[in-house]
Amino acid sequence: MNYKKIEIIGLKGIPDIKAGDDLAKMICEKADEQIGGLREGDIIVVASKIVAKAEGRIVRLSDVQPSPFARRVAELTGKTPELVELILRESNKIVKMKNRHLIVETKHGFVCANAGIDKSNVAGDEEVVSLLPEDPDQSARRIKEDIMKIKNVDVAVIISDTFGRAWRRGHVNFAIGVAGIKVIKDYRGSQDMYGYMLRVTQIAVVDELAAAAELAMGKSDRIPVVVIRGYDYPRGDDSIKNLLYPEEKDLFR
Amino acid sequence: MNYKKIEIIGLKGIPDIKAGDDLAKMICEKADEQIGGLREGDIIVVASKIVAKAEGRIVRLSDVQPSPFARRVAELTGKTPELVELILRESNKIVKMKNRHLIVETKHGFVCANAGIDKSNVAGDEEVVSLLPEDPDQSARRIKEDIMKIKNVDVAVIISDTFGRAWRRGHVNFAIGVAGIKVIKDYRGSQDMYGYMLRVTQIAVVDELAAAAELAMGKSDRIPVVVIRGYDYPRGDDSIKNLLYPEEKDLFR
Repeated sequence: MNYKKIEIIGLKGIPDIKAGDDLAKMICEKADEQIGGLREGDIIVVASKIVAKAEGRIVRLSDVQPSPFARRVAELTGKTPELVELILRESNKIVKMKNRHLIVETKHGFVCANAGIDKSNVAGDEEVVSLLPEDPDQSARRIKEDIMKIKNVDVAVIISDTFGRAWRRGHVNFAIGVAGIKVIKDYRGSQDMYGYMLRVTQIAVVDELAAAAELAMGKSDRIPVVVIRGYDYPRGDDSIKNLLYPEEKDLFR
Repeated sequence: MNYKKIEIIGLKGIPDIKAGDDLAKMICEKADEQIGGLREGDIIVVASKIVAKAEGRIVRLSDVQPSPFARRVAELTGKTPELVELILRESNKIVKMKNRHLIVETKHGFVCANAGIDKSNVAGDEEVVSLLPEDPDQSARRIKEDIMKIKNVDVAVIISDTFGRAWRRGHVNFAIGVAGIKVIKDYRGSQDMYGYMLRVTQIAVVDELAAAAELAMGKSDRIPVVVIRGYDYPRGDDSIKNLLYPEEKDLFR
């Protein structure tokens, strides 16, 4: 009897990314060098940090003019007023402000701390931060289409970032943008191995794939791109927005 | 330059589990047949359902006598009174009751719908449900120790189950019990690839490993055991309790 195998492959040697860099080209090159090229059905998980850098979503904190409200929130949370100003600009609303944490709903609809703004892994000046990509679905689509142009191979692309969760300590990697893959794998109407109709039937596969990819990314290794090979994913156009509860359906907002 | 590879291997042919079955023995046998045996440093992810069945955590709903409160909650949530009674018996408290959902904190401290009680994948009578294992850390330790006895090989074991999340649709696989692995991979004090001190530094690796394993489990395949190979995990004794926020530290309870 044959086992079922999925491979999580971290591509090494992706250089420091600058605004305007062609990520698809770099990914194809590293895949050619290291794993004999990308294949039809591969899932490419890309850390949002390098997408943000390629898209120029880098801000110098000293260029930011904080509002009076940002100054007040900064005082209460122990963050700098410039950082809080940027967080507010990237947000629809503050979901929770407590114990010096600032949990917001970003303009994309993600509920996360500090609107996903991050200081780590941005080169040069300590005072420089990276924002999330403006439209991560669009970023994913662009990389997917560019890979199709360069290599004529049909892959799925997931942009990922590391967020905290309710109820559980620690961060895990989540999908924040998708292309060529459905966000949910739907087992409704299918039967389990004893012939029962399945109850838990909608699996957020893109989040599981992002989490799996993080295992090969690490935080201090230079591995912002991971290829997942051998997973039979639900193909098609979709948007990360279909993975987010609107507030009125959310039990915890 | 060498890529970094992690393998997710779903073991096939695990038979229908009955109370008293020796899971460690079955896992070792299937690994021997299919992947040449378990290796030092493998991580074995086991679906809680088969652990519950091996431990006899199966209840016939017709044997349950619902309390008046269970009957009232059943009316309000559209569940059967017997199921609600079981959910309440497995719970410390009701965290949220809304839109016919019943989100509780289980006796273990997990925040999840219906205390993790599940009808799918339990053979025979429709009226039979499986509870979560009583002490999933202990279940994981037993499997780990039994594998050590049978094969003299040091592995990590994670018991996993599929729960919903706040803010995001769909279910993903989470760790609910661990042995031989730290629940958090801690990057505090380490530097990122540009020499910055890392900000997001505590990764809930056991949840990422559980999520990765689900990709090879599927829901309708008979794959309740997954071996993750090639991941350099933080070794040592730990408890899933160290991954759960106590209520007073939780921003969303």
